[in-house]
Amino acid sequence: MSTLSGPQLVARLQWRYATKRFDAARKIPAADWAALEAALVLTPSSFGLQPWKFVVITDQPTKEKLVPVSWNQGQPAECSHHVVFAVRTKLGEAEIDAYLDSIIAARGVARESLAGFCGMMTGFANKPGLDVRAWATFQAYIALGNFMTSAAVMGIDTCPMEGIEPGRYDEILGLDKTGFATVVACAAGYRADGDKYAALKKVRFPKEQVITRI
Amino acid sequence: MSTLSGPQLVARLQWRYATKRFDAARKIPAADWAALEAALVLTPSSFGLQPWKFVVITDQPTKEKLVPVSWNQGQPAECSHHVVFAVRTKLGEAEIDAYLDSIIAARGVARESLAGFCGMMTGFANKPGLDVRAWATFQAYIALGNFMTSAAVMGIDTCPMEGIEPGRYDEILGLDKTGFATVVACAAGYRADGDKYAALKKVRFPKEQVITRI
Repeated sequence: MSTLSGPQLVARLQWRYATKRFDAARKIPAADWAALEAALVLTPSSFGLQPWKFVVITDQPTKEKLVPVSWNQGQPAECSHHVVFAVRTKLGEAEIDAYLDSIIAARGVARESLAGFCGMMTGFANKPGLDVRAWATFQAYIALGNFMTSAAVMGIDTCPMEGIEPGRYDEILGLDKTGFATVVACAAGYRADGDKYAALKKVRFPKEQVITRI
Repeated sequence: MSTLSGPQLVARLQWRYATKRFDAARKIPAADWAALEAALVLTPSSFGLQPWKFVVITDQPTKEKLVPVSWNQGQPAECSHHVVFAVRTKLGEAEIDAYLDSIIAARGVARESLAGFCGMMTGFANKPGLDVRAWATFQAYIALGNFMTSAAVMGIDTCPMEGIEPGRYDEILGLDKTGFATVVACAAGYRADGDKYAALKKVRFPKEQVITRI
């Protein structure tokens, strides 16, 4: 199976940057996009519970409606595929059961064999003070990190967008009343030739400052 | 520059799983580990603020001390490199200034030219009700997602670990009183031949359920 060497991987991550101007004429080919959707679906999560929904927007009028609710940043309109990361706002018996059903379907195991695992998840879900939305958002950010790195490895540009109005996104995308809520977005596509941000030197704290070795 | 095709990327992500048993005798070569540290450092974050510290543990006695505070899971002891993701618990003028200094150093720009950007970050930091720790944790989870995908792309196994006692990690690693706090960990190395979890069918909700297209 093909892998990247360390230097090849680092070159991809150095190439990546938060793209400000996308080439609006250039769309991600369907086969490449299918791989990125598969990457989203394959994201690991806490207990495997996948407390998320990914909304993929290519409809141009919808993309344009998202600009004013994204601090007027142009990426949602100019990118090829705009992805919205939404999370479950509730974690209860129904959600845990649906997940157990999917384990049973995938692995052909008996429900009884999952009793211990079910108990662990139920205990977690009932933990006093658990902030389900924050927990689910942590998981969505794993998906965001996985998505950006996956895209970079394939030569596809992205721009993570926290500067959005999540409530307005929910309205425009019809997420309100679905049990999911927008937490963050990420535009994907190809950088425009003239994006001056592509040439800026990357700013990172020195390795010695952020990494401690024991 | 080398990239992976969509099917090559998906094959890597299918290969990845939460490794339960690592081959304790097999260590990640220094050059490969250096690439994974670079990947951590290159993780994108909100405003570029990098509100994190990554603690990389290879010292065997320390790794073993982490087992009882990781719900007695063996991965910290058996893996090659155990990474702890810690976040800043405070975001104020000092942190923003240090970041501005690093932008000035990297790009040779005048401090005055960053006044607008500084104002945005200060406004964010002073937002009533901002939960700095949660915000910083979101960023750390981008790093976690990036790290696991980077490792998979290089053929290195990982196991994300939320089932840990963060306060005890802080004590053992000497993080208390540093302004950083443990939020999650990830073991890295190579799967043991006998790890039965490697052969289990991956469980994911069907694509149609988690992806909505507009």
